Amino acid sequence: MIAVLCGGVGAARMLAGLQAVVDPGEIVAVVNTGDDTELHGLYVSPDLDTITYTLAGAVNPATGWGLTDESFHALQALERYGAITWFRLGDSDLATHLYRTGRMRKGATLSVVTAEIARAWGLSVRLLPMSDDPVRTRLGLADQREVAFQEYFVKLRHSVVVAAVRFEGAAQARPAPGVLEALGSAQIIVVAPSNPIVSIGPILAVPGVAEVLRARRDMVVAVSPIVAGAALKGPAARLLVELGGEASAPGVARFLSSFVGTLVIDEADADRAAEVELAGVHCVVAPTVMGSPELAARLARAVLRAGGIGAGSSGSATTGPEA
Amino acid sequence: MIAVLCGGVGAARMLAGLQAVVDPGEIVAVVNTGDDTELHGLYVSPDLDTITYTLAGAVNPATGWGLTDESFHALQALERYGAITWFRLGDSDLATHLYRTGRMRKGATLSVVTAEIARAWGLSVRLLPMSDDPVRTRLGLADQREVAFQEYFVKLRHSVVVAAVRFEGAAQARPAPGVLEALGSAQIIVVAPSNPIVSIGPILAVPGVAEVLRARRDMVVAVSPIVAGAALKGPAARLLVELGGEASAPGVARFLSSFVGTLVIDEADADRAAEVELAGVHCVVAPTVMGSPELAARLARAVLRAGGIGAGSSGSATTGPEA
Repeated sequence: MIAVLCGGVGAARMLAGLQAVVDPGEIVAVVNTGDDTELHGLYVSPDLDTITYTLAGAVNPATGWGLTDESFHALQALERYGAITWFRLGDSDLATHLYRTGRMRKGATLSVVTAEIARAWGLSVRLLPMSDDPVRTRLGLADQREVAFQEYFVKLRHSVVVAAVRFEGAAQARPAPGVLEALGSAQIIVVAPSNPIVSIGPILAVPGVAEVLRARRDMVVAVSPIVAGAALKGPAARLLVELGGEASAPGVARFLSSFVGTLVIDEADADRAAEVELAGVHCVVAPTVMGSPELAARLARAVLRAGGIGAGSSGSATTGPEA
Repeated sequence: MIAVLCGGVGAARMLAGLQAVVDPGEIVAVVNTGDDTELHGLYVSPDLDTITYTLAGAVNPATGWGLTDESFHALQALERYGAITWFRLGDSDLATHLYRTGRMRKGATLSVVTAEIARAWGLSVRLLPMSDDPVRTRLGLADQREVAFQEYFVKLRHSVVVAAVRFEGAAQARPAPGVLEALGSAQIIVVAPSNPIVSIGPILAVPGVAEVLRARRDMVVAVSPIVAGAALKGPAARLLVELGGEASAPGVARFLSSFVGTLVIDEADADRAAEVELAGVHCVVAPTVMGSPELAARLARAVLRAGGIGAGSSGSATTGPEA
C-alpha cells in the first residue's frame, strides 16, 4: 500500500500518475484540510475536491481545479447580494459542496462524506481527510493582519508578505480514521509536490502524524515542489523565503529533513543534489514537471523506485519503460 | 398602512396587485415560514422567495415560483450523489439560499436577511417573516406517517390523504419584529388568497397573532382561495374537506370566521354569498382570479374598498377605474 500526503493540484496530478502505474486500490491519499472553509454556509474542501475531480478525469484542465464545462450562474446571482464572489464556485461544483454540507449537518463526518463523494465519482484511490476535526490555516501578514487561507490564496492572490503561519485547531485535532494506520503500514509514504508550508504543513501539525513519519523516515519520499528556484504553481517559493528558508531544492530538503528520507528533485536542479544530500536527505534526480499524464506516470515510477518499489518489488506495482 | 397575511404564489400575486394601486411603502407582508426547510444544508424559505421574485418581476411566469430564465446545473450534478432532487433548486435561485444561509450562520435573523434580500431586489413592500423562530408545518397522513411540508407538497405532490396538521415549534415561537405592530396599527389587514390551513394557519399559530386579528376582526378582509369549489393552485380544497370542512366559499368563511370580518368571494360563487353571511362574515363578491397584473390590481382595489379604503379614503391609496 502506498500512502500519499497531499495538497491540491500538484498532489492530484501525482496521484493520477500513481493511479496509472499501480493498482489504484493500493493508494491511500491523506489530504490537507487546512484550506477548508465555510462559504455561504457551505463546507468547502478545496484539496479533496481537486483530487476527486482530477482522479475522475473531470477537472478543468485550464485551471487544475474545478470542473470542466462549468457554468457560474449561482455565482453571478450572488453578486446581487454583495456576497463573496472572489471564490469561484461553479454550478456543478456547488452540488459537491451542497451534498457534503447536507450530510455533515446531519452528523456525517468529513471522512464518511469524502468516501461517499469519491465513490460517486467512481474512484478506487482511497481519500482520507487528514482530520475530521477543524484545522484552519491562518496567515499572519507583514502588515499585522491575520487572514484565513482562502483569503490569502484566492482573494489576495498570495501576493502579500507572510510573517507567520499557524494551523488553528491542530493541537486539538485527531487524525481521521485510517490516517495513522495507513502511514504506519504503507510500503512507501509519498509527500506529493505540494506546498510544504501550507499544504503539507497542516497534515504534519495533526498530532501523531509527524511522529509516524519520523519513525518511518526511510520510507518517506518527497517530490520537490520547487523547480529551478520557483514553484510551478502557488506561493511555495515566496513562503519558503518569507519564513526564513530558501526557495530551492536544498531549501525544501532542509525544511522536510526531519521526516523525509529521500527527495526527488527536478533535472533542472541536478547541480543542487549534493546540497540536498548535505541536508541529510537522499537525493534522486528525475523529471518532475507533470505537464501531461504520461509525465505524471513517469514521475510516479521514479518516486516508487526511489522508495524501493521497482519492477517486481511490489505485488501491486506495475512498471513501464524507464523514465 | 396595509398588512397582508401571505402564503406563496396567490399571496405574491395579491401583493403585486396591491403594489400597483397603493404606495408599496405602505404595504407590510407577514409571510408564512412554516414551509421553510433545510435542504443540502441550505435554509430555504419558499414563500418569502416567491413573493420577492414576484414583486421584483423576476418570477417564472410558467410556475409562479422560482426565477425566470433559470438553469439547473447544480441540481443535475446533485443526482450523482443520490441527493434530493425533487425540490427543484435553480442555479440563480441557489444564490438566494446561499446568501441567506451564509448570513444566518453568522448570526443574522431571518427578518434581517429577508429585508436585505428584499432590498437587493429593489422592493419597496416590507416583507416580514411571521417569526424568526423555527415553525415547521407537518402533516399527519391517513397512513399514519407524518411528513414535513415540502415532502407533502413537492415530493408527494399533495396527492395523499391528510388526517392532521401541526405547526411544530409554534407554541415557542415569537412573532418576528414588526409583525404585531403592523397587525395592530394597519388600516386594513388583508388575508391573501392562500391556503387557509397550511399557509395562513402557521401564521395564526404564532402566539399573539390570532389575538390581534380577533381584536381587529372588523378590519380583516380575506380573499377566498376557493373558487367554484376548487383551489386555483395547491391542496386547499382537499385539505379543507379532509380536515372536516367544506371546499367552498362558505367553508372558507366558517374556517376563518373568528378573525375575519369580510370575505371577498369570486363572482362564480355569488350564489353562496348568503351562506357566507350566515357564518357571520360580511361577504363581498368580486372577480378574484388574478390571471393578469391588471386583474390582480382590480382585485386589490376591491379588497381595499371592502376594507373601507376607497378613492380618497386613504392618503396612500390611489384608485383607478372601478372593477
